[in-house]
Amino acid sequence: MATKVKPLSGFPEYLPSGRMVEQRVLDILRETFELHGFAGIQTRSVEPLEELSRKGEITKEVYVVRRLHAETGGKDDLGLHFDLTVPFARYVLENAAALQFPFRRYQIQPAWRGERPQQGRYREFWQADIDIVGQGSLASHHDTEVLLVMLEAAGRLHDEIGLPRVIARVNNRKLMQGFYTGLGITDPSAVIAAVDKLDKIGEDAVRALLAADAGQADSIMALGRIKSPDDGFVADVRRLGASNEMLEQGLDELAALVKAVGARFPGQVVADLSVARGLDYYTGNVFELSLEGVPGLGTVSAGGRYDSLASDGRNTYPGVGISFGVSRVLAPVLMKGALQASRPVPSVVLVAVDDEGTRGVADEVAAALRARGVACEVAPDAPAYGKQIKFAERRGIPYVWFGGLSGQVKDIRSGSQADADATAWTPPAEDAKPSLVLGVLNW
Amino acid sequence: MATKVKPLSGFPEYLPSGRMVEQRVLDILRETFELHGFAGIQTRSVEPLEELSRKGEITKEVYVVRRLHAETGGKDDLGLHFDLTVPFARYVLENAAALQFPFRRYQIQPAWRGERPQQGRYREFWQADIDIVGQGSLASHHDTEVLLVMLEAAGRLHDEIGLPRVIARVNNRKLMQGFYTGLGITDPSAVIAAVDKLDKIGEDAVRALLAADAGQADSIMALGRIKSPDDGFVADVRRLGASNEMLEQGLDELAALVKAVGARFPGQVVADLSVARGLDYYTGNVFELSLEGVPGLGTVSAGGRYDSLASDGRNTYPGVGISFGVSRVLAPVLMKGALQASRPVPSVVLVAVDDEGTRGVADEVAAALRARGVACEVAPDAPAYGKQIKFAERRGIPYVWFGGLSGQVKDIRSGSQADADATAWTPPAEDAKPSLVLGVLNW
Repeated sequence: MATKVKPLSGFPEYLPSGRMVEQRVLDILRETFELHGFAGIQTRSVEPLEELSRKGEITKEVYVVRRLHAETGGKDDLGLHFDLTVPFARYVLENAAALQFPFRRYQIQPAWRGERPQQGRYREFWQADIDIVGQGSLASHHDTEVLLVMLEAAGRLHDEIGLPRVIARVNNRKLMQGFYTGLGITDPSAVIAAVDKLDKIGEDAVRALLAADAGQADSIMALGRIKSPDDGFVADVRRLGASNEMLEQGLDELAALVKAVGARFPGQVVADLSVARGLDYYTGNVFELSLEGVPGLGTVSAGGRYDSLASDGRNTYPGVGISFGVSRVLAPVLMKGALQASRPVPSVVLVAVDDEGTRGVADEVAAALRARGVACEVAPDAPAYGKQIKFAERRGIPYVWFGGLSGQVKDIRSGSQADADATAWTPPAEDAKPSLVLGVLNW
Repeated sequence: MATKVKPLSGFPEYLPSGRMVEQRVLDILRETFELHGFAGIQTRSVEPLEELSRKGEITKEVYVVRRLHAETGGKDDLGLHFDLTVPFARYVLENAAALQFPFRRYQIQPAWRGERPQQGRYREFWQADIDIVGQGSLASHHDTEVLLVMLEAAGRLHDEIGLPRVIARVNNRKLMQGFYTGLGITDPSAVIAAVDKLDKIGEDAVRALLAADAGQADSIMALGRIKSPDDGFVADVRRLGASNEMLEQGLDELAALVKAVGARFPGQVVADLSVARGLDYYTGNVFELSLEGVPGLGTVSAGGRYDSLASDGRNTYPGVGISFGVSRVLAPVLMKGALQASRPVPSVVLVAVDDEGTRGVADEVAAALRARGVACEVAPDAPAYGKQIKFAERRGIPYVWFGGLSGQVKDIRSGSQADADATAWTPPAEDAKPSLVLGVLNW
C-alpha cells in the first residue's frame, strides 16, 4: 500500500522498545492515580470548534477536522482538542446528573496543537491529567492532594524509570491579584500576564509591558523575586507593605500548600512568587513542575485551582487539577533511544521447531508456557538449531526451548541448558518482563 | 469554560463505570497479544492525505486535519487515519532497518471515519490489530496463528467479560480467483467485489452486477453457497468442476486453516465461500468474525493475508493480520449501561475524617493502605460518621475506615465492623478491584 515514507515533524513515534518504556510510564501513572481513587475516563478527540475557540492565544493552533468533501466553514465544524481540560469541562456538564461529587478523574490521552515544530514542542502529544471537581464548592485540601499525587507519580518515575526528580514551583493567584490591587493597580490580570513572561523576556522587558509607575513596577518585581522552600515567603511579602483580604487569603492558601507538600517531599517544593501560569481560569494556588537539572525542558507538569471549571446555570463546578506532559518528558529521550527496554519483544522464550512436521509440538509447548503467563513465540521456520538461537539473539529473547513438553531450556546468554517441564517452568522474575535500560538522559 | 453541552453523534463516550469495562477489555487484548510475543506500537493519528486517498471507497470518509488559519488545499494536508493498517504499512517502511522480521506487532488505537452516523457505525472508534509481517517471505502457518490468537483473546472476553462467543467465517482469495478464472471470467476481482455484497443485496442483485453468462453466474452462486465446518468444502468445490493451480493452492491453504483452527476451537470456525472482504489487498486466506447469536452487529473482527503490505523498491513485506472492532462490540452495550463495573471508582476504602484538625491522621491511614496496593480515598469533609458512610454508599465504595493506623474497618454492605491495622489489612480479593456486572447484552 504505502510506497512513500514521510516522517512528519512534531508527531513523535517510537520503535517497539521505546513504546514499551512509554507504556510502562503510562501504567505507572494510571496505577498511582487509581490507588488514590481517581476514575479513568476518555473523551472523544474532537470538540465543536466554537468550544475550542474561547481560549484566546491557543485558538490559532487548533486543528480543524472536516470530512474530505464537506462544505467548508459549516457551523458543525469540529476541532481536535488541544488539552484535556476543555473536554473534561464539557464532560462534567454533560454527565453531571450521573456523577458523584467531588468527582475525581484521571484522563490519559493525546492532544493536538498546530504549533510551529521546535525543540520540545509537539503537534501530537500525550498528557496525563487528574482533577477533582466539586458541585458548588470544593475544600482547599484538595489543592494539596492533587499536587501530592502527581509528586508521588513522578517519584515512581524517578525510582522505576530513572527520570530526574521533579521540583514544584507554586504560587497563588489571589496572592498576586490582592498584592497588585493593593498597589493601586486596576487591571491585575494584565500584570499576571506580563509577569508570566519573566522567564522568557526578563525584568526590563516585563517592566515595559506594565501599565504601572516606577514604584509599582519595583514592588511587582520585588514580589516576583520572592522564593522560599517553606512559609518564609509570608514574612517576605509582608515586608513589601501591601495588605488586603484577598492577599491574606492567598498567603494562607499558599502557606498551607507549601507546608504540607514540603513535609511529604522535602526539597521538592518552592513557593516562587514569579510563577504566573498563562491561562486565565486559575483563581487560587498554581503549580509548575520541572525536572531537576533539566531547565531546558521547561515545565513538564502544571495545574492549579479554578473556581469555576464550568457552569450550567444552576451549578458551578470548582476544581483543582494538574497535567503531566508525557510526551514532553519522554519524546526527546525515546526518539534518541536514550531509554530503552532490555528487549524489543515481550517474548521471554523462543520455542524452537525441529521440522515443519512437528510444529504442533512446539505450539503445545508455547500454549503450556502461556497458560502460566510466560510470553513466548514459536520459531517462524525450522533451520538448524544454531540458526534458531541466532534468531532469538537478534530479537533479544533470552531463552530457547528445545523438544516437547518435557524438553530442555537454554539461557542463550550464559549458554547453560537444562531439562525442563513446559507445564511447570518459569523464567527468573528479572527476565519475565522486559526491563528498562537507561542511557545518558540528555534532553 | 464550557457553557453549552453538545453530544456528537458517532463519537461514543462512557461514564466512568463503562470506561472501566472498556479498559478491562483493552487490558485483556494487550495481555493476550503480549503472551504471544506481539510488541505494541502506536502510530501518529494523522497521515499525509495522499497516503489515505488510495483506498477508493473509503476516501470520501477521510477526515482532513488542517490548522485553523492554514491555507486550504495545501500539499501538506493531513488526514486522520481510518484504520491501523495504512499507518502500520508506512511504519514498517520507515523503520524496516531497525525491525526484526517476521515483525509481530499489536496496535490498539482509535481510528476515524466520517461516516453517516447510524446504528453500529462510529466516527471515532477503537481498534485492536495484530499483524505478522515478513521481509520478502512469510510462512503460511502465520495465517492460522493470527486467527488463533484473536480467537483466544475473544475467548477471554467471553469468559471474563461475558461477551458472546465469536464465530469465524473464513475463505481464500486464491480459491475464489482460481475458480472464477477457471470459469473463463477475465476480471475475477470484479466478481469478488460483487460477491462481497451477497449478504446485503442478495443473489439476484449480485447476478445483475456480474459480467457473466447464466452458466458462469450459476457456478459463482454455487461456490458462494458452500459452507463447511471442516475441509469438506474441498470436495464440494471439486464437484463444481473447475480446476487450476491457483484454485488448488487456495483449497490447500484454506483446508489447513480450517482444520487447525477447528481442532483448537471446535464449532467456532466455518469455511464459508461467500466471504469476500471488501478490500483489494488480500491475496490468500481471509477471516470474518461475528458474535454468536448477534447477527445484527455484523462483522466485529476481520483480516487476512496480503502478499505485499508495502514495498520500498528493494523489499516487499508480505503479512497477515486481523483487527478487532473494540467500539463496534462495546459502544452499544456501554452506552446503554448493559455492562458496568461494580463501582464507578477504583477506591475500595473510604477513610473517614473525625474533624478537619485530624485530616493528617486519615491521610496517614490512606498512605499505609496504598503502600500495599489498596486503592482508597479520604473523605472530602468531616460530617457525622453516618453521612460519611452514606457518601461511601453513593460512590459504591464497600469499606469505611475509622480512626488511625490502628483503627476499625466497616463493610458497609453487611454492617460488620472490626478492629484493623492499616499497615496490614487487605480487602477480600473479590473486592480489591471493581468487578463487572452484566446486564442483558442486547445489541
